[in-house]
Amino acid sequence: MEHPIAILDSGVGGLTVAKEVMRQLPLERIIYFGDTLRAPYGPRPSEEVRLFTKQIVSYLLQYDPKMIVIACNTATAAALDEIKAMTDVPVVGVIQPGVRAAIKRSMKGAIGVIGTEGTIKSRSYEQALKRIAPHLQVYSKACPEFVTLVEQGLYRSSKCKPVVERALHEFKQLDIDTLILGCTHYPFLADAISAFLGPEVELISSAEETAREVSTLLYHRGQLASTLEMPVHQFFCSGDPVLFQKIAREWLGDEIQVNPVVWQIPRFA
Amino acid sequence: MEHPIAILDSGVGGLTVAKEVMRQLPLERIIYFGDTLRAPYGPRPSEEVRLFTKQIVSYLLQYDPKMIVIACNTATAAALDEIKAMTDVPVVGVIQPGVRAAIKRSMKGAIGVIGTEGTIKSRSYEQALKRIAPHLQVYSKACPEFVTLVEQGLYRSSKCKPVVERALHEFKQLDIDTLILGCTHYPFLADAISAFLGPEVELISSAEETAREVSTLLYHRGQLASTLEMPVHQFFCSGDPVLFQKIAREWLGDEIQVNPVVWQIPRFA
Repeated sequence: MEHPIAILDSGVGGLTVAKEVMRQLPLERIIYFGDTLRAPYGPRPSEEVRLFTKQIVSYLLQYDPKMIVIACNTATAAALDEIKAMTDVPVVGVIQPGVRAAIKRSMKGAIGVIGTEGTIKSRSYEQALKRIAPHLQVYSKACPEFVTLVEQGLYRSSKCKPVVERALHEFKQLDIDTLILGCTHYPFLADAISAFLGPEVELISSAEETAREVSTLLYHRGQLASTLEMPVHQFFCSGDPVLFQKIAREWLGDEIQVNPVVWQIPRFA
Repeated sequence: MEHPIAILDSGVGGLTVAKEVMRQLPLERIIYFGDTLRAPYGPRPSEEVRLFTKQIVSYLLQYDPKMIVIACNTATAAALDEIKAMTDVPVVGVIQPGVRAAIKRSMKGAIGVIGTEGTIKSRSYEQALKRIAPHLQVYSKACPEFVTLVEQGLYRSSKCKPVVERALHEFKQLDIDTLILGCTHYPFLADAISAFLGPEVELISSAEETAREVSTLLYHRGQLASTLEMPVHQFFCSGDPVLFQKIAREWLGDEIQVNPVVWQIPRFA
């Protein structure tokens, strides 16, 4: 059997990455872990986020993955380097792919970034963008309320519009042409964000871009799936599986085979 | 001094890749070689293309590059594996990046590919697309006349429109949403191609996507430029430097520092 790609997140946000991996790499098998019991990670001290991320990676390593995707910006900002040091399996975070995509797309060189408090406070995006292209102008803002909407399954409700508008009104004044959705929960709200900011601001989804980079790295490492069989994915969460399953099915859709879904709650926490 | 990124092409087509590397990785230094004396490569037997590509890579290796970019689809299709076997320096071709970008962007799963005779005959794009996503529908066509227009510096002339329309009329009948410009010369004609096919067909530029993947690989290998100094690039061609220089300056623009440009004609051919 193919070695899987392990994807982890604080909760359901990483499903946006899983969905894109399924679409862009339909032959790859996924093991997903959402730490719904302890979500959101955004407001937690980075020390704690690092500990939780290491626990989950230890759990996922037993599935012998060929790649680990930290599909959570907060965890990437807090723990990427430590996770890389922990294992020989290649580890991909969600910050760098969004950074490279934003640089590719922004013609004005003026880029907005939204994320959780943890991500924005870490200044990871700003540093990564300027590390590659020092001339860029970067405007950052934490939007923690978006995560709550998504984790509660309210991302298609009428509650989104006023929350999005209140959070993003400052960006209407700025001359940006690119906005990085620096949290894997935010693609759930992409339609509402785009409706408010208008077509001249292109949204960069960490999810799409990370899947693209997973594809790039698997190819260059000679590790693309070698069978033509459709893979069977596995999903785990640490909290209530009912809401997680509802959101996972809504988001991943029926066109993608995710059966049999095995639910299991590991005993740390 | 930073090790450079070596970029090679049959002629001026690879300048589209160089331009994107300069934009997306402004701190990286480039050594460019255009084999204008022997362009176009498209109609040549693949054996010959392989030989020429190896000659140029041997020449470029003396500059101790940290990465080699075969910025020519025909040469990538014919010689990528042999060039990889020739050196420990990582080698990036232009086919795989376009493939991954097309898969990311195509929602219908119906993708067009245009390239030189050599590229289309090799079926490299079709095979690479289906290797990752077997369900895709792929429509390919050779458009060798585009390369001639570009190498002659006529890409902004009124001659382009009828040539583009004649070459691409079949794609108007097909329900594609994505067209891969499978030749690095074609981005010079992107406006004319887009005007004819309309906004519902998204063009994938090998150039943009390859630069993005160069950025990805340099990051994951820990090889991004470490100084903040603006680099001094070097350009070489095997044929007439006057026309090459005219096109290079027109395409790369004044906003990018490419001085001092050193012109030199190596003595093979």
